[in-house]
Amino acid sequence: MKCEQIGLLVDKYQLTMAQTYFKNNRMKHTACFDYFFRKLPFENGYLVFAGLQDLLEMLVDLRFDERDARFLIDEGFDRQFVDYLRQFRFKGTIYAMREGEVAFPVEPLLRIEGNLIETQIAETLVLNILNFQSLIATKAARVRYAAGERTVSDFGLRRAHGLGGIHASRAAVIGGCDSTSNMLAAFHYDLKAVGTMAHSFVQSFEDELSAFREYARFNPDSCVLLVDTYDTLKSGLPNAVKVARELEAKGHRLVGIRIDSGDLAYLSKKARQMLDQAGLDYVRIAVSNQLDEFVIRSLIEQKAPIDFFGVGTRLITGQPDAALDGVYKLSLFDSRPRMKISDTLIKSTLPGKKRVLRYSNGEGGFLADAIVLDDEQQIDCMYHPFEKEKRFKVAGLHQEDLFIKVMENGEIIMERESVEQIARRVRERLKMLPAEHKRFEYPHIYKVGVSKRLMDLRDSIVKQFRRED
Amino acid sequence: MKCEQIGLLVDKYQLTMAQTYFKNNRMKHTACFDYFFRKLPFENGYLVFAGLQDLLEMLVDLRFDERDARFLIDEGFDRQFVDYLRQFRFKGTIYAMREGEVAFPVEPLLRIEGNLIETQIAETLVLNILNFQSLIATKAARVRYAAGERTVSDFGLRRAHGLGGIHASRAAVIGGCDSTSNMLAAFHYDLKAVGTMAHSFVQSFEDELSAFREYARFNPDSCVLLVDTYDTLKSGLPNAVKVARELEAKGHRLVGIRIDSGDLAYLSKKARQMLDQAGLDYVRIAVSNQLDEFVIRSLIEQKAPIDFFGVGTRLITGQPDAALDGVYKLSLFDSRPRMKISDTLIKSTLPGKKRVLRYSNGEGGFLADAIVLDDEQQIDCMYHPFEKEKRFKVAGLHQEDLFIKVMENGEIIMERESVEQIARRVRERLKMLPAEHKRFEYPHIYKVGVSKRLMDLRDSIVKQFRRED
Repeated sequence: MKCEQIGLLVDKYQLTMAQTYFKNNRMKHTACFDYFFRKLPFENGYLVFAGLQDLLEMLVDLRFDERDARFLIDEGFDRQFVDYLRQFRFKGTIYAMREGEVAFPVEPLLRIEGNLIETQIAETLVLNILNFQSLIATKAARVRYAAGERTVSDFGLRRAHGLGGIHASRAAVIGGCDSTSNMLAAFHYDLKAVGTMAHSFVQSFEDELSAFREYARFNPDSCVLLVDTYDTLKSGLPNAVKVARELEAKGHRLVGIRIDSGDLAYLSKKARQMLDQAGLDYVRIAVSNQLDEFVIRSLIEQKAPIDFFGVGTRLITGQPDAALDGVYKLSLFDSRPRMKISDTLIKSTLPGKKRVLRYSNGEGGFLADAIVLDDEQQIDCMYHPFEKEKRFKVAGLHQEDLFIKVMENGEIIMERESVEQIARRVRERLKMLPAEHKRFEYPHIYKVGVSKRLMDLRDSIVKQFRRED
Repeated sequence: MKCEQIGLLVDKYQLTMAQTYFKNNRMKHTACFDYFFRKLPFENGYLVFAGLQDLLEMLVDLRFDERDARFLIDEGFDRQFVDYLRQFRFKGTIYAMREGEVAFPVEPLLRIEGNLIETQIAETLVLNILNFQSLIATKAARVRYAAGERTVSDFGLRRAHGLGGIHASRAAVIGGCDSTSNMLAAFHYDLKAVGTMAHSFVQSFEDELSAFREYARFNPDSCVLLVDTYDTLKSGLPNAVKVARELEAKGHRLVGIRIDSGDLAYLSKKARQMLDQAGLDYVRIAVSNQLDEFVIRSLIEQKAPIDFFGVGTRLITGQPDAALDGVYKLSLFDSRPRMKISDTLIKSTLPGKKRVLRYSNGEGGFLADAIVLDDEQQIDCMYHPFEKEKRFKVAGLHQEDLFIKVMENGEIIMERESVEQIARRVRERLKMLPAEHKRFEYPHIYKVGVSKRLMDLRDSIVKQFRRED
């Protein structure tokens, strides 16, 4: 999606730092930053990496226009620096996992190389776009996992965070939704849009049957009737059955009914019975109302004969977490490895230019990921990132390099992928992730390790710092 | 903020319904919809109503351009209807509470009147904009309540929901933040923007002291040093003290230090001591890192000498709720009152064209709100909306009409207010809300009632429905 004034979609400190680098003539220095996260949302066993295509396009469009320049000068920025920003284009190089990849804590998902100013200015965009879309794609993958083969649609726009709803619907489809109610997202990302009627439609007629008839008359082949405006079983269903028969008489078929309140397990079973008894076994049952992966799982466990789930608020806002804690950390300055040293190793970062290798068994099931230095082609053994004594032999396993170059000197060199392609990748990659990492309750922790050389590099930097201390 | 293609920022069913109305020649009918919510977020005692100005501007800009038209035809919409949409302008009339008003469950915050199609098409925008901004403004009001007179800034853009971050920062300032890190929101809404340096700035230098010196050199009068990159007390503070003295020698003053990790209570006390002992009592202490209203309250209870709180993720995503459940319900069709009848009265809606009156005591403290029919100027007594036997005498109390006409036939007639004005209203109105509604734990429930005539209207509609049943 195109957004104006992308340059200003930035935390002020990025510009304050950039100006200081500019005045100090440090902008020729190069830097490398990693994007990674520490904690999986939803106590999930994996993350679905999403937002890459949008991020790259926004980086290409990133500039500061005349309005921005005037604003920055009003804000007290230096005229020379603002003139520099007016010329500014992001010319960095980016390596990343493919969009739709499953990813795990600590490992970099993306690496940006460029000069000190451009890599710094990109930070807010990287975090804003990737954190949010990955959060929602991951939530959607959980919803999809619960729903199995049933249809799932994103109905969340009305509870989405303002314009964030547009990216959210994209991410929801990447993670596993079949469609969305959000027309603007459907337009921008070529998603399937769905939607039929609200209670207000039914209420705007003198009675429910008239409303259903009028809707069916003008939408004879795409008619899903909302049956809970007055009384689902006593009024909505009998009226829907009448209208279905009238449609049949004219050579059409009622597509479905939707239930948006009450006990969805009970009502869907009763509805199925009533429809089947009327010979309407082809009419599908859709439900909505505060759904999430747990409600859907429970409905399916109860054998509720539901064909379609419309999932809104809890999907589109990524409840209960509402945020992914992804961070953007300096790992290299010019050619010198950099790390943030913390009291605890867990909060420290990994220095140097890195890649991620994935190991699988013969059948293609994922076993472990190793974070290695960029020039390491192969390793025999990986180490737990924080508990050195834990090691895992990877020699002989099938190895895959998860990092591809997606942008070079500011130009996107990755082939543009449709949301459908990315969504397919999510399905394929999740198929290769063993089931124990996909369950909702205490999923098995996926192994992520570091190479010996990376571990030694980190240790040497920490040791040097402690010595100086 | 300007957004392109606002017409498509809509759930598909709004357009499917609108098309059905169009074909059925029902678009001349008039309708009235209420926006209200049922449940307060955060178990808070009140809601801060926000988003109105943005909503009205988006309704004025709402149109379907040529791209939209082509897309809608591809989506299967009827060409005649799409031609109608190409001409479409929102020409409705809106009454609402003032932006920044404190509001309560069940009462309408806004009422839209217009033809059946325009009122239906507006639904998604109304819900998307008002739900989200009111959520964040309410969260910010809680943060402000905890922080008292200390400075609070929104640092959330990196964890915000994509572009939703722009509206979020606006709402955060409305609710009580002094400033934001978000430059695009600052540009659009004339907010105060703040921000100095990240860890990467410090790491990009060979040592912390060089980084501090360089920053101070180029920002001698706006220098806030981030002191926790290596070791807050052993390295960051001593270096900050050195640089503060160097600044003093040149006639400048270090503005502050920022601590972004570790125990903020302990570290801020130690930092205050070290600064004061160095004669730097003017240097302010800023903190950030997973703050929310509870952490801030705890820090203040511990007498942490903190001057500035940077609040990010939990504010900007409205954690833990992440959504306000506001709904948009038909209350009048032509001149006939409409309501959704549910098994429980609580889930039913209130029929007819309505206003909200607020009652206060002599000192100006808010006592109760009454939902009345639009033509009721005054009432003596209000009734609990769901428990008739509970009544509350309002005769003789100071009465205020909370509804003002903000849009007439599609034109904004309300004077444009700055975010600063709206934020001031929030402060003033919250001052008038008794303390027991503002506490975090089990806030006292504010009284909201209905007039006798409204109650009778609802009862008569329910009775008629049950008779037909």
